Amino acid sequence: MTYEDKCAFIFKKIKEEKPLVHHITNFVVINDNANTMLAIGALPVMSYAREEVEEMVALSQALVLNIGTLTPEVIESAILAGKKANELGIPVVLDPVGAGATQFRTESAWRILREIKVSILRGNQGEIGNLLGIKAKVRGVEGDTVDADMNDLAQEASQRFETVAAITGKVDVVSDGKRVVKIKNGDLLLTKITGTGCMATSLCAACAAVERDYLWAASSALGFLGVCGEIAARHSLGPGSFRVSLFDTFYGIKEEEFKALLSLEVKD
Amino acid sequence: MTYEDKCAFIFKKIKEEKPLVHHITNFVVINDNANTMLAIGALPVMSYAREEVEEMVALSQALVLNIGTLTPEVIESAILAGKKANELGIPVVLDPVGAGATQFRTESAWRILREIKVSILRGNQGEIGNLLGIKAKVRGVEGDTVDADMNDLAQEASQRFETVAAITGKVDVVSDGKRVVKIKNGDLLLTKITGTGCMATSLCAACAAVERDYLWAASSALGFLGVCGEIAARHSLGPGSFRVSLFDTFYGIKEEEFKALLSLEVKD
Amino acid sequence: MTYEDKCAFIFKKIKEEKPLVHHITNFVVINDNANTMLAIGALPVMSYAREEVEEMVALSQALVLNIGTLTPEVIESAILAGKKANELGIPVVLDPVGAGATQFRTESAWRILREIKVSILRGNQGEIGNLLGIKAKVRGVEGDTVDADMNDLAQEASQRFETVAAITGKVDVVSDGKRVVKIKNGDLLLTKITGTGCMATSLCAACAAVERDYLWAASSALGFLGVCGEIAARHSLGPGSFRVSLFDTFYGIKEEEFKALLSLEVKD
Repeated sequence: MTYEDKCAFIFKKIKEEKPLVHHITNFVVINDNANTMLAIGALPVMSYAREEVEEMVALSQALVLNIGTLTPEVIESAILAGKKANELGIPVVLDPVGAGATQFRTESAWRILREIKVSILRGNQGEIGNLLGIKAKVRGVEGDTVDADMNDLAQEASQRFETVAAITGKVDVVSDGKRVVKIKNGDLLLTKITGTGCMATSLCAACAAVERDYLWAASSALGFLGVCGEIAARHSLGPGSFRVSLFDTFYGIKEEEFKALLSLEVKD
Repeated sequence: MTYEDKCAFIFKKIKEEKPLVHHITNFVVINDNANTMLAIGALPVMSYAREEVEEMVALSQALVLNIGTLTPEVIESAILAGKKANELGIPVVLDPVGAGATQFRTESAWRILREIKVSILRGNQGEIGNLLGIKAKVRGVEGDTVDADMNDLAQEASQRFETVAAITGKVDVVSDGKRVVKIKNGDLLLTKITGTGCMATSLCAACAAVERDYLWAASSALGFLGVCGEIAARHSLGPGSFRVSLFDTFYGIKEEEFKALLSLEVKD
Repeated sequence: MTYEDKCAFIFKKIKEEKPLVHHITNFVVINDNANTMLAIGALPVMSYAREEVEEMVALSQALVLNIGTLTPEVIESAILAGKKANELGIPVVLDPVGAGATQFRTESAWRILREIKVSILRGNQGEIGNLLGIKAKVRGVEGDTVDADMNDLAQEASQRFETVAAITGKVDVVSDGKRVVKIKNGDLLLTKITGTGCMATSLCAACAAVERDYLWAASSALGFLGVCGEIAARHSLGPGSFRVSLFDTFYGIKEEEFKALLSLEVKD
């Protein structure tokens, strides 16, 4: 089985198993997150009331914690849901949106990483750098480059937080602390619409629901988004039509095309 | 006047009267709900603060209560707005999203049904089945089939909750406890984007604002969504373009085409 | 430099400076607001927790306060962020969505105008009229006409609230109390999708981030939206495709086309 086969197989399994992915996510992307799940054959459920998150996550096959529009109440619910997920062996994917921009974001992300066993930590270079205490320039939720090699950053984050670290950027890097996968797919238009980072996170969760090697769950997810972005860009006049085409591609992309366009570099 | 004429007439009246439809709805679909109203010629207003919902509903011609991302605060506001609507004779449409998935959802829906006179209860088979205490499998907010005939379910829900019950699925069934309307329109793509159930609910409310025979308000709404879905699917490459085309169709569909495509089965 | 050059120059500066625009905005349009910013080359950040708004606004070049789905908590955060913005000389743009529809909205807008130095007040005729105590018919958040000349209204609002007043409608009028700019661009389809008023507000903020003559910041923003609306309408079958094309146009519009289509009337 090639690496490309492995990635394609994960998306085939999503279509077969239709995992329910519980999202505690932000209000900017909540609709896009749900539509991303439906387009690939997974089922989304969005729910963040402390009164129900434990019950909801228990019905689910993966949990997304995305702090993009965090409040203390949302963080409490995230902790409750995360603990229940851990108890039941359900994978948890954390998106520390804007970590480093404010102390509240950085500390909330740290708290989740401390109290919850996170399966995949998905962020950009600035966010992950800031969580590691490396001075990174962050402009709001737009992570900027840090003075650190992406490989080192991914490996260090993985080891420090005992998780698979998935760092997205021009090139995406995923590491479980030892193995490293680089994904060289994507298109500039992915940065011209909001929420593609959050889509990456949701895709990681759907993949983690069906594949317990989280390095490959995350790598498949990021490869899928990058490849779909490349295809969608061909049919786009700008960010409006790109977004439409992106959802069409999530839904209709053929296995062969996905595998042919994937550009991976693997250090096993 | 044929049944088809009746349905078309209701949508003509919406364009003429431009009813204001107050939504206390969930954050996944809040934008789609608003755009659905504007596309058919109604006016949306989204507002859920307890400080203003009574005043807002008093300006409106219909009220949507949708518990898709419920919190205790939202439920309180829903009860306040619902009571005011009842007092003023403004129709109330309830969407018990995810009832059965968690106790909080089931009990919140029951509470609304107990304290508010609901004009139309719009849900899927799983949600309505669960509200009736029939063991239904629900996966998050995706209602699955129950071991019950759709007709019986609609009639029982209607009688038990003293409302028009509108159950959506492959075939939609609407009942006021005696009369039953089946609507055999729709397209698979309606299940590949989030929020089409919630759109159905908003459409029910806009129709109820101009037509006090709620059986026909709900039937027209579901028929309209199904027919528009069929037309939109013809112009779509996937869920992204389908959603775009759906709003275009809401806006531009011709009366004759709507009537010609409607597929109703009526038991008067 | 012609007036048209001035407007085009502001949008060129946005592309160069990539201002970060902090939004405390409503949940109907939060995604559209973010995508509007990205499409024109600005950076959005959405954040409303009292725990972080002061820190976030300090990183930003402009602040949007939009009360479309207000709660007491959101108003508290708006006041905190606004005061910090004032302290740091960061422009604040207020959108008093639905002022006049409920007392809570009117009073919240008044409170912000009293406690915060607002650079641009962007609303429709009904909202601004109601804030001035002129009896205006408002249907939910859809401002209706008032018995007042648009010019007078803009000038009075500007003087009363010590701000640039930007009133949108069939014709847009912007005034700083002395100078008046009328913008005669736009298309009916801008009223058939939700949130174009809120987009206008976000555009005002992005322009104010790079241009301290707020009369021209607001005029450029409204001219840009109107012109893009005209172009998008040419490529649209209805509100669904219009919205897609609007974002494509925000992104791709050429300077020459923008200037050629702008229709301004200036009273210096």
